[in-house]
Amino acid sequence: MNFKSILEEIHKEIKPIIGEGKVADYIPALAKVSDTKFGISVNTVDDDIYVLGDVSEKFSIQSISKVYSLTLAISKLGERVWERVGREPSGNAFNSLVQLEYENGIPRNPFINAGALVITDILISLFDDPYKEILDFVKLISGSDTISYDLEVAQSERENGYRNVALVNFLKSHGNIKNDVEKVLDVYFHHCSITMTCKELSKSFLYLSNHGLIPNSEKRILSKSQAKRINALMLSCGTYDEAGDFAYLVGMPGKSGVGGGIVAIIPGELGIAVWSPALNKKGNSLAGTKALELFTSKTGMSIF
Amino acid sequence: MNFKSILEEIHKEIKPIIGEGKVADYIPALAKVSDTKFGISVNTVDDDIYVLGDVSEKFSIQSISKVYSLTLAISKLGERVWERVGREPSGNAFNSLVQLEYENGIPRNPFINAGALVITDILISLFDDPYKEILDFVKLISGSDTISYDLEVAQSERENGYRNVALVNFLKSHGNIKNDVEKVLDVYFHHCSITMTCKELSKSFLYLSNHGLIPNSEKRILSKSQAKRINALMLSCGTYDEAGDFAYLVGMPGKSGVGGGIVAIIPGELGIAVWSPALNKKGNSLAGTKALELFTSKTGMSIF
Amino acid sequence: MNFKSILEEIHKEIKPIIGEGKVADYIPALAKVSDTKFGISVNTVDDDIYVLGDVSEKFSIQSISKVYSLTLAISKLGERVWERVGREPSGNAFNSLVQLEYENGIPRNPFINAGALVITDILISLFDDPYKEILDFVKLISGSDTISYDLEVAQSERENGYRNVALVNFLKSHGNIKNDVEKVLDVYFHHCSITMTCKELSKSFLYLSNHGLIPNSEKRILSKSQAKRINALMLSCGTYDEAGDFAYLVGMPGKSGVGGGIVAIIPGELGIAVWSPALNKKGNSLAGTKALELFTSKTGMSIF
Amino acid sequence: MNFKSILEEIHKEIKPIIGEGKVADYIPALAKVSDTKFGISVNTVDDDIYVLGDVSEKFSIQSISKVYSLTLAISKLGERVWERVGREPSGNAFNSLVQLEYENGIPRNPFINAGALVITDILISLFDDPYKEILDFVKLISGSDTISYDLEVAQSERENGYRNVALVNFLKSHGNIKNDVEKVLDVYFHHCSITMTCKELSKSFLYLSNHGLIPNSEKRILSKSQAKRINALMLSCGTYDEAGDFAYLVGMPGKSGVGGGIVAIIPGELGIAVWSPALNKKGNSLAGTKALELFTSKTGMSIF
Repeated sequence: MNFKSILEEIHKEIKPIIGEGKVADYIPALAKVSDTKFGISVNTVDDDIYVLGDVSEKFSIQSISKVYSLTLAISKLGERVWERVGREPSGNAFNSLVQLEYENGIPRNPFINAGALVITDILISLFDDPYKEILDFVKLISGSDTISYDLEVAQSERENGYRNVALVNFLKSHGNIKNDVEKVLDVYFHHCSITMTCKELSKSFLYLSNHGLIPNSEKRILSKSQAKRINALMLSCGTYDEAGDFAYLVGMPGKSGVGGGIVAIIPGELGIAVWSPALNKKGNSLAGTKALELFTSKTGMSIF
Repeated sequence: MNFKSILEEIHKEIKPIIGEGKVADYIPALAKVSDTKFGISVNTVDDDIYVLGDVSEKFSIQSISKVYSLTLAISKLGERVWERVGREPSGNAFNSLVQLEYENGIPRNPFINAGALVITDILISLFDDPYKEILDFVKLISGSDTISYDLEVAQSERENGYRNVALVNFLKSHGNIKNDVEKVLDVYFHHCSITMTCKELSKSFLYLSNHGLIPNSEKRILSKSQAKRINALMLSCGTYDEAGDFAYLVGMPGKSGVGGGIVAIIPGELGIAVWSPALNKKGNSLAGTKALELFTSKTGMSIF
Repeated sequence: MNFKSILEEIHKEIKPIIGEGKVADYIPALAKVSDTKFGISVNTVDDDIYVLGDVSEKFSIQSISKVYSLTLAISKLGERVWERVGREPSGNAFNSLVQLEYENGIPRNPFINAGALVITDILISLFDDPYKEILDFVKLISGSDTISYDLEVAQSERENGYRNVALVNFLKSHGNIKNDVEKVLDVYFHHCSITMTCKELSKSFLYLSNHGLIPNSEKRILSKSQAKRINALMLSCGTYDEAGDFAYLVGMPGKSGVGGGIVAIIPGELGIAVWSPALNKKGNSLAGTKALELFTSKTGMSIF
Repeated sequence: MNFKSILEEIHKEIKPIIGEGKVADYIPALAKVSDTKFGISVNTVDDDIYVLGDVSEKFSIQSISKVYSLTLAISKLGERVWERVGREPSGNAFNSLVQLEYENGIPRNPFINAGALVITDILISLFDDPYKEILDFVKLISGSDTISYDLEVAQSERENGYRNVALVNFLKSHGNIKNDVEKVLDVYFHHCSITMTCKELSKSFLYLSNHGLIPNSEKRILSKSQAKRINALMLSCGTYDEAGDFAYLVGMPGKSGVGGGIVAIIPGELGIAVWSPALNKKGNSLAGTKALELFTSKTGMSIF
């Protein structure tokens, strides 16, 4: 398929709405990002890459990191992960406490904040140096040595993240956090602060397109079945309270972050990353969502 | 693919667990169905059909009918349907009132009972004789003239369906039911009472596999985009509070009913119906779910 | 105490705000009542009576009837009433379904609609002719033979009372309604439709001021302990989601209705009824609440 | 009234159930208290005192301190306190997060933990040294110089109080905490850790019996109206989710703590404190509640 010309078509159509929406401004480090940025990168499982726009600029991946931390936890613990976090879509906003109270401290899934905090706690129990393990893992799957934490963002999140502090203490009160809450928050805010480029992101998700295996390597990250599980979770829970519309409009399993990035995959085919910092009302990149929708329309590549 | 031998393999493996679980017993007409029944039917978009077991016996399709009523509503009203019902997964049990109160009478999606009642109300406003229109529609897509309501079941549901009566009155108090509540309940319980065979069911879902078009005909039921929408909804909301696991284990958009039936599709490929009346704790056919899981494992046909 | 001059002072101060607020308009029969009406009646346990304004005009007592039905149920069943309804204040609006779902169909207390429906169900099980028994009871305690149902109001409530229909069906689905739901609704809407005058109302509550005994008679309605229970419940749950403020500002156990009536008592001393149809935002008579507040300020008669 | 012999009667009747229930054991410092302790102290507004049992032993007052902190806040800020905390009974358990989310961070009342944390935040804004101010205030109203914090308890609460940490961060995320969360928690856990004797407690509540004025002094703590407000709040919210039963069975405004203490008042008459560490299922002293019930039965002193 001629991805090059498709990306150009998308860019032409998307141009007028780049900047529509609102850049996340709950911390200064995110608020200062220009809302005119736009990048899109397609990486096939054969490792062809097609890019357009600001694809080499690092940005804050935020909640996209929840896919990495979940993968790492599953790769070590397998099914035992599900003893502490659910696998079902969540009907409420992404950091609601209500459901959590109702369900006795077991988060609905690993992509709501509560679930990601539990996964982070699991990683802390597994690794002596979770900071290094997480970074090494992302370096491995993205094939890039320049992945790093943005310490200013991590620090700023900690200082303003009262709801997450509430969540982790609430989970602790239910016995579903085993480590020190400050440690959990610190590792959590660190992995959310990772900065990456569109090119790194699209490549880093190929193990999910490729049934658990990094393409063109002997390196297995997950079993085929585990990769399928994560793709299913991304489809129904990957884009906050807009997952239903995203599944329909885009038709790809994907994960978004408030930094304006979205990564999605077509099983067996490709990974695709898009970045545009201005968000729609549900907290997903406005132009990014539209770009992915155009991509599946033009390529006919929806899973549905 | 050799579907015939695959169905035989599935049957062999599934045999020991047929009857495990519990037949729905909230009304006598459902409770009396034998838990030893098992049928499976695969219908390709080329209209090849592969069957095994009790595939010609009629059973109560129950919530599967929600796909038909939604299709009918969308085919007439298009996007305006979504003014009165949401498109997002629901985090709660399938007939919860809490979320409904929180969201001012707009059900999360058309596959929870509240949503299906609103869709039924829409159909009543659209048609002079909704009973006939629904039946005619199911006859059309299943290619069968013998589709009918089970009046004993419909009557029995009405007499015992206090939660649904509560739901429809609650929706009415929020202004989201336009017609007489008794009429809405009557049409709703009628379409849930439709009885069909596995063969009819698998065929009837082909318009969803075939992008809105009945295969081998000029008959368009939905636009390609509308069919995609329903498939996406089935994936994230089609099997009550087990949708996440179903998406992962089975990997097909599907819809279940408490009569023990499940229908699912592979876009562009096939429709598949399975029937086994004993249900698991989440209200889905226990052996049916397992059979579908084996089907995708053996064929490698998951959408993920 | 010179109640006569106190009532006159109250009236003078209250005059400017009579008509402020909003007459209940969810049914025509209530909406047509003039918002300029105002009556106040004080009845001591020695059976002295002091009145001012529209005290001989009948109006719809609405939720005030919940005190009568509860009294009747307790007088027959005693403590067994509490197996089916709670005794604790409710934190939500007066007809919320959320708490009910959370607490498995046991209403928090008998003064929220759900609780009153359960009490009504109890009365239907106790009496062959609950309509007559309820009316006879109110006649007895008010010393008036002219108490009657307003059939137009009862009928109109039934036709518009979708939330109450939802509630009773929801309760039935939880097994906490034993009789036919239509019968329960009919008796319920009937007792809410009772019309009384301020004079009748203030007299009718004297058994609660007088520790269970109708003053100047041998007639015991409740034990001393049962009367105390109802007074305690009225204090914490008698005025919808304004009970806390009412307890503080007025300092008397009392019960309000959307018809604009409020009845309150001082234990050992008196019953007082006030009527002014325009309601504040919490659904209580605006001028009526203020009048009662002035009454306790001027007499120093608060229980606190 | 012969309080001396009444206390003796109560003790005789209560003896068999002292120790029934369960001493709070969520922190070691509370768990180690003997469940055989029992003390009761009655202090009239004329400053007569009647005591029996372990009335001179200090124990942890815990939530009883919420009355002191609220009083201090109201005495300084008056009605403005109610801009940040509600005045209505709460239908849920005493530290629920659900209602708080539903009501956008405004706690229902100052006696649930969330409300007490907001009040603590107010005190921190008001005073340079809130620790000293709180202690000085309790010394003043109890007439005792030996009131102090139990630093072991305060420290232990902080280390185990995950739900309170969750609450305060959740409130902060809603903008209803102005100071540093750690400071708020520290002051909060300090005032909960205050230790007092029954004698000190019963005396310390006399300003609430005496309409805001410390008896036999010129010292006004609250206006008459403010004292009434707190009494009304104690009646409907002072004993967690048992307030309804407490109001009925005991019939006095009161406040309990998980240390096993309960203080209650009869307006215009007396303050009464009881201590027995073993708690009933709702978290109130089991023998203490019974003792107070007997007290009002025997004296006939209920407010109802």
